[in-house]
Amino acid sequence: MPIFLRRYLPVLDWGRTYGGKTLTADLMAAVIVTIMLIPQSLAYAMLAGLPPEAGLYASIVPILLYALFGTSRVLAVGPVAVVSLMTAAAVSQVASEGSMGYAAAALTLALLSGGMLFVMGVLRMGFIANFLSHPVIAGFITASGLLIATSQMKHILGVPASGYTLPEMLLSLARHIGDITLPTLLIGAGSTAFLFWVRKGMKPLLKRMGMADGISDTLSRIGPVLAIIVTTLLVALLDLADRGVAIVGAVPQSLPPFTIPDLDTDLIATLALPALLISIIGFVESISVAQTLAAKKRQRIDPDQELIGLGAANIGAAFTGGYPVTGGFARSVVNYDAGAKTPAAGAFTAIGLAIAALALTPLIYFLPTATLAATIIVAVMSLVDFKILHTAWTYSRADFAAVSATILVTLMTGVEAGVSAGVILSILLYLWRSSRPHIAEVGLVPGTQHFRNILRHKVETTPSVLTLRIDESLWFANARYLEDYLLNRLAGDLDIRHVVLMCSAVNEVDLSAVESLEAINQRLKDQTITLHLSEVKGPVEDRLKRSSFLNHLTGSIYLSQYDAWKALIPEKG
Amino acid sequence: MPIFLRRYLPVLDWGRTYGGKTLTADLMAAVIVTIMLIPQSLAYAMLAGLPPEAGLYASIVPILLYALFGTSRVLAVGPVAVVSLMTAAAVSQVASEGSMGYAAAALTLALLSGGMLFVMGVLRMGFIANFLSHPVIAGFITASGLLIATSQMKHILGVPASGYTLPEMLLSLARHIGDITLPTLLIGAGSTAFLFWVRKGMKPLLKRMGMADGISDTLSRIGPVLAIIVTTLLVALLDLADRGVAIVGAVPQSLPPFTIPDLDTDLIATLALPALLISIIGFVESISVAQTLAAKKRQRIDPDQELIGLGAANIGAAFTGGYPVTGGFARSVVNYDAGAKTPAAGAFTAIGLAIAALALTPLIYFLPTATLAATIIVAVMSLVDFKILHTAWTYSRADFAAVSATILVTLMTGVEAGVSAGVILSILLYLWRSSRPHIAEVGLVPGTQHFRNILRHKVETTPSVLTLRIDESLWFANARYLEDYLLNRLAGDLDIRHVVLMCSAVNEVDLSAVESLEAINQRLKDQTITLHLSEVKGPVEDRLKRSSFLNHLTGSIYLSQYDAWKALIPEKG
Repeated sequence: MPIFLRRYLPVLDWGRTYGGKTLTADLMAAVIVTIMLIPQSLAYAMLAGLPPEAGLYASIVPILLYALFGTSRVLAVGPVAVVSLMTAAAVSQVASEGSMGYAAAALTLALLSGGMLFVMGVLRMGFIANFLSHPVIAGFITASGLLIATSQMKHILGVPASGYTLPEMLLSLARHIGDITLPTLLIGAGSTAFLFWVRKGMKPLLKRMGMADGISDTLSRIGPVLAIIVTTLLVALLDLADRGVAIVGAVPQSLPPFTIPDLDTDLIATLALPALLISIIGFVESISVAQTLAAKKRQRIDPDQELIGLGAANIGAAFTGGYPVTGGFARSVVNYDAGAKTPAAGAFTAIGLAIAALALTPLIYFLPTATLAATIIVAVMSLVDFKILHTAWTYSRADFAAVSATILVTLMTGVEAGVSAGVILSILLYLWRSSRPHIAEVGLVPGTQHFRNILRHKVETTPSVLTLRIDESLWFANARYLEDYLLNRLAGDLDIRHVVLMCSAVNEVDLSAVESLEAINQRLKDQTITLHLSEVKGPVEDRLKRSSFLNHLTGSIYLSQYDAWKALIPEKG
Repeated sequence: MPIFLRRYLPVLDWGRTYGGKTLTADLMAAVIVTIMLIPQSLAYAMLAGLPPEAGLYASIVPILLYALFGTSRVLAVGPVAVVSLMTAAAVSQVASEGSMGYAAAALTLALLSGGMLFVMGVLRMGFIANFLSHPVIAGFITASGLLIATSQMKHILGVPASGYTLPEMLLSLARHIGDITLPTLLIGAGSTAFLFWVRKGMKPLLKRMGMADGISDTLSRIGPVLAIIVTTLLVALLDLADRGVAIVGAVPQSLPPFTIPDLDTDLIATLALPALLISIIGFVESISVAQTLAAKKRQRIDPDQELIGLGAANIGAAFTGGYPVTGGFARSVVNYDAGAKTPAAGAFTAIGLAIAALALTPLIYFLPTATLAATIIVAVMSLVDFKILHTAWTYSRADFAAVSATILVTLMTGVEAGVSAGVILSILLYLWRSSRPHIAEVGLVPGTQHFRNILRHKVETTPSVLTLRIDESLWFANARYLEDYLLNRLAGDLDIRHVVLMCSAVNEVDLSAVESLEAINQRLKDQTITLHLSEVKGPVEDRLKRSSFLNHLTGSIYLSQYDAWKALIPEKG
């Protein structure tokens, strides 16, 4: 089998050894995941502003494609909360909810996102996700959770509120406070309370009754199905739909349809940036889940191949009536806990959902949207965690600035602006810090050959030699800083005959910095001071040899700072 | 005198000791600079698309204000080539050349730029200029020089060509090739040839005739005045204006008028980004000139105070019929060479230019624009230098990418896009490199206490201890990279019992990286491998103490790598 095929189609690896025992395990897992996914898919479609069946469709073909191309054995791909919210935010810019254009734009968004993920995968650009720092991700998830929960309050209260930012939504809810419909509120609040109890109260109860951890977890995750059955029956039997309770209504009985995304250039231009953000955030969410689960079984995840897998899944969603998808946390964990062994479990789940889309949709005619809203609220509230603010504050102001900016901008302006602000701010703060490097004057730790900061350690020094350890790579943003620092340090200190730059922390010297070093060398020469370097790393020395700096250097390059010390102060060596 | 005042008004320092000898030197310099500035100011105003008098006005009040607030003793502030080009590019977006709105928008641009510079100065944000790397500046200057020279070809050829990018301009010139007017071409080409000869031929000639360097330099810089006198007389005496030679025409005889910039919010929104770029580029040009000249006399330039000085100068330009200004290279060098001692020389120059604006403008009625174009072309061609491409190519691909992107985008799209592309690309390349740090496996250099890369040096190692030197600060963009690198390195190597991370090059550890270190510690613990750190710098250790990482660390932190070596391999210590 050609290596090429095996690289891009991991299915060829695990498929060859597939057998009876694995099949049973995968089938079992698929049944459980299917039951859990039906309400989740409907709910997230509602969150994305799409008809409920879009959520089912988005869970079928994408799962199959991921099973072919993905490297995780247990990742379950489909609609997830944050991506659904981002889809709503992006698509509502170009079409109004419920219109034909809205669903079509969601397809375009999925195609764009899938295409971007696929291209990034082929170009091996998985590293891009590294630029989302932990504080930015944590802040973004918390703020999105709050936004999502707030956005669902209108379904719980049964009022026609609107808005995409926290202030807009709260204001709109407040304005509609008189329109609250009691039956809806009872169903919504009741479902929410029940689902919270399932998470917080039932699980410990089942455990105390001696149930294994995995099973009680799984049971608590299919709690939403119970809520749906009960509330649907209530609405149907008590004719609550006539008393103002919003219901899902008629959902077409169909396999995923073949759809062609709208390729209007204006539409693509507007959706390109949201698609990129959805791709990156979806990828980060998915890869975190996949790596966490893979680590438990010492399996390997290839980030670049994951991009291809998720890209294929999203392209699939675009052509089968779905919307942007990614690997979800809850569904993957259930899949894992339920014993899935290979991506075949995903394929069986897809079959289960296809049967649901074809046969079961009449059963949810009377399903109240308030119940779906409750399942969303309970799911996302577990993501909201403000502890990161405290952790970041304790650790460093820069991390705190990044996380708080992300949270604030997400809540006040929206998800895209929030995550962009967090990424840009954290990169700017990093650049700012490395443009003002820590520079330590060092001396010899007595009895060793080790040199440390004279301000922190008892060390030996000598007036004629100034040794500076530069704690940063030298690059254009800090080249002038070093020049200024050194000239200020030398001003008035007439004993100094040698300056040694200890380069143990200098990992790179770019062209601007070389020019600064040349200038420093010249200025020191004018003052009859010799410039030396020590502990220059291999790659850095190789680089310096390509410039003319070493030809002009008045002093020498020493392998170790101790060598420099011995050479410049022979009597102490 | 309050410290506060002395900080913001350097004039209070040098003004107190002002006397006769300095006065004579300053007056002499002012006469020479005034003669040189008259044609230059007219020419740069034309380059900016403004009436010629705007160039004179922009040289009067700004010089006076800089003399009050600036820290350089010899910097001459006024219109310069690159800023004039950027002004034309920015203002032509909002108004057509020659219209009232065009001149008004130029005032707004000067006010915005002045306000930004002033605010940056008060906030001590001079460091922003450091983010323009040497390759980006060199590429930008070269490309702008080419753009400017090309833009003046229409005046030399006497055709109505247009465009702001190199292809646009060349295409437009080609389209008008049949319209070339011979008298204009003769004047333009003649002036250009003469001015080039003054630079390249006359100076060596004067030197051979025994003239001092400074004087021959200064003479060659006032060559344009000769060209202007001769061509103006030619046009006037031969009635060339009637034969199609474009002339400057009537210029109002007036001191700088009091003008109020247009503060329309749409206008401000459009001009904000250009104003920021003009501010930063103007500041970089000015501070380079000021520092070069100050270094020759061991004087000090305060970058933050320079921002305030340039800010005041631009605000002054906005209220007196000028346009954005900065410290110019040519005019400052002439000022310095002519013997200026204090900013008073600038004040005298301002008086000279005011007299010119009031009394001499009728004399330039017949001045052909082709001559002005020739002075611009000769001035900017000295900026064009493609050597930087070769230097950067030899040194590193990243620097080469930055300089070539800057040149290409500037020529193809314009100055603003060019410099933005250069800055953004050089920052992205820096981020990319530091997201993939060099990691070296190190061992003990025999007979020393120094540790180096096992691949480059003959060193001692032992199978049970893996020592990795991480050549980069640990931050969010490379946190996962270290994790992957380490786990890949450990896979299959069953001898390893200790991992030592040698942190001599780790200048910072952010919150994301701490979480990665915790994860590494945990994974190693699962494999019964102990994790140690060595040579952790003071500031980094302080930081780590704020997290819970050190509580969980399975191993120790050693002051030096040699201490770690002795502790972990007692028999070799």
